[in-house]
Amino acid sequence: MPTINRQLLLQARPAGLCAPGDLQLSESPVPELLDGQALAHVRYLSIDPTMRVWMADRDNYLPKIPLGNVMRGFGLAEIAESRNPDFKKGDKVVGLVGLQDYVVINEKESRAFQKVPNVPFVSDSAFLGVLGVTGLTAYFGMTEIAKPEKGETLVVSAAAGATGSIAGQIGKINGCRVVGIAGSDDKCKWLTEELGFDAAVNYKHADWKEKLAAATPNGIDIDFENVGGEIMRAVLARMNLHGRVVLCGLISGYTNEDPALESYSIIIVKRLRVQGFIIIDYVSRFMDGATQLGKWKMFGKIKDRETIVEGLEKTPEAINMLFSGANTGKLIVKVS
Amino acid sequence: MPTINRQLLLQARPAGLCAPGDLQLSESPVPELLDGQALAHVRYLSIDPTMRVWMADRDNYLPKIPLGNVMRGFGLAEIAESRNPDFKKGDKVVGLVGLQDYVVINEKESRAFQKVPNVPFVSDSAFLGVLGVTGLTAYFGMTEIAKPEKGETLVVSAAAGATGSIAGQIGKINGCRVVGIAGSDDKCKWLTEELGFDAAVNYKHADWKEKLAAATPNGIDIDFENVGGEIMRAVLARMNLHGRVVLCGLISGYTNEDPALESYSIIIVKRLRVQGFIIIDYVSRFMDGATQLGKWKMFGKIKDRETIVEGLEKTPEAINMLFSGANTGKLIVKVS
Repeated sequence: MPTINRQLLLQARPAGLCAPGDLQLSESPVPELLDGQALAHVRYLSIDPTMRVWMADRDNYLPKIPLGNVMRGFGLAEIAESRNPDFKKGDKVVGLVGLQDYVVINEKESRAFQKVPNVPFVSDSAFLGVLGVTGLTAYFGMTEIAKPEKGETLVVSAAAGATGSIAGQIGKINGCRVVGIAGSDDKCKWLTEELGFDAAVNYKHADWKEKLAAATPNGIDIDFENVGGEIMRAVLARMNLHGRVVLCGLISGYTNEDPALESYSIIIVKRLRVQGFIIIDYVSRFMDGATQLGKWKMFGKIKDRETIVEGLEKTPEAINMLFSGANTGKLIVKVS
Repeated sequence: MPTINRQLLLQARPAGLCAPGDLQLSESPVPELLDGQALAHVRYLSIDPTMRVWMADRDNYLPKIPLGNVMRGFGLAEIAESRNPDFKKGDKVVGLVGLQDYVVINEKESRAFQKVPNVPFVSDSAFLGVLGVTGLTAYFGMTEIAKPEKGETLVVSAAAGATGSIAGQIGKINGCRVVGIAGSDDKCKWLTEELGFDAAVNYKHADWKEKLAAATPNGIDIDFENVGGEIMRAVLARMNLHGRVVLCGLISGYTNEDPALESYSIIIVKRLRVQGFIIIDYVSRFMDGATQLGKWKMFGKIKDRETIVEGLEKTPEAINMLFSGANTGKLIVKVS
């Protein structure tokens, strides 16, 4: 049995990209197994943008990693030794194995490691990619949040990435027009020529926003958003009424502090649903609403207050009152 | 019959608050009616934050107002003369009457003006407030987007405003804990003592975020957002998993250009649904997803590419590759 376990410890939290020393290689003995534990030999690590988020000095959807601990990481490992009847030598599992050669799976964590089957023609690493968390992110993001319909236009940012490339192909399977945004002409070529995207736009070209517009002549119904920042703003600006944004990642902000992304990152971490709302969509139901409000008002369930300003000529000052907090309740100008 | 119509014309687009001269009072003759037209005498104007948005030099959910035109405004008017059988003298209507004494309603616009009933004990102005567009905004925003459930915590910003004060009361009717954010102690007192809010926080006090935290011990499930900016960020930071944000207004950004609000204003104007997404919510369905992805892969409907980096010690560089765009498809470290 192996006796040495190499581990990458989080020794400092990166500013920007990972600098030498942020993750330090260290060696420790492979521990003796206790009853209920299993030892697994890590074969593959999934490298994901979210790892950079985990390194930060704050909890997000998972607790922050204390300095000096093994860096968190998702991967595929093979059971080398087991004192847990759920695992036997040779079983392959995926889970949060950590950045190390060997991981000890405690009995109470055993359900967080899923066994992967041996499937002909499917490589082990596919269980970290297309059939793993990355592919599943594209799958559930598209099927549960975006819910694409035939004929709609889907735009995917970071489209040549592990998640974006699958999300776009799921859009094609669902009959969408699919446009990818990526950072090189080679990636764009891969998207259109091999993956069947209808168009791909290289955001490093100065005229990329015009190209995005040309590639989305009917506007955009779904944004599968992996990037944030300027790319997201350009996509949002072309969205159709009542479009959907699957806020999956904000990679443009992971290595720098972009304050414009702060609230969007909360939306992801808390999995919030944010819906823009303008009353004009409900004009046909105004009478229903007013009837209900009128009943509530009549029975004292709702109270209201009006601030009335007299004179058409006072309207500009009245508008400004809204922004100084001068009024309470409804502000009205009495004209005549 | 009147011969002079006073009108407020949009002569310049404000920077910040409305300055003298942005809206200029001007007089024009009341036009002779043509067949199908009606003339209405404006009684009340609804003063709404969105008016400031309309003054800007860009289309939003309505076209921008050309300089020199009568400023757009919602109001209540009384028919003074009619050559349209749908309206008779004395009828009261609400609609986009404009900031003027008299509005000519053309035949083809007549459906955009809704007649209001004479209801005992209900003032005409209520049809611009609690029973009008403002109250309806609260009503449909709460019932169609927020969908409050008993026991949930609702936070309303600009809570003493026309929409916020009604939205909060609808939250109470639905059994929510309701917390308002407003800009004065008097407003807060009105919310809790007269409208029945459970708590109200004055954001002008330095410790308002602590008070918001104390007032929302179980976190926040629904944000009825009228303000944006720092207030919205503080509310989002306390949201519970899978909470909902009714993005109704961003008044903090209407008189200044806050770039952090730019994309949120698109979300409102286009009425987008933005949903934060993390794959861990779907762990129990991974097998279903992987099975479907596996079928698609087997039948060539989905293609994938992997970039494999060899060696645990290369992991830090691999993580950085994600941010330089160095890889295509899934990035994996082969450990052993």
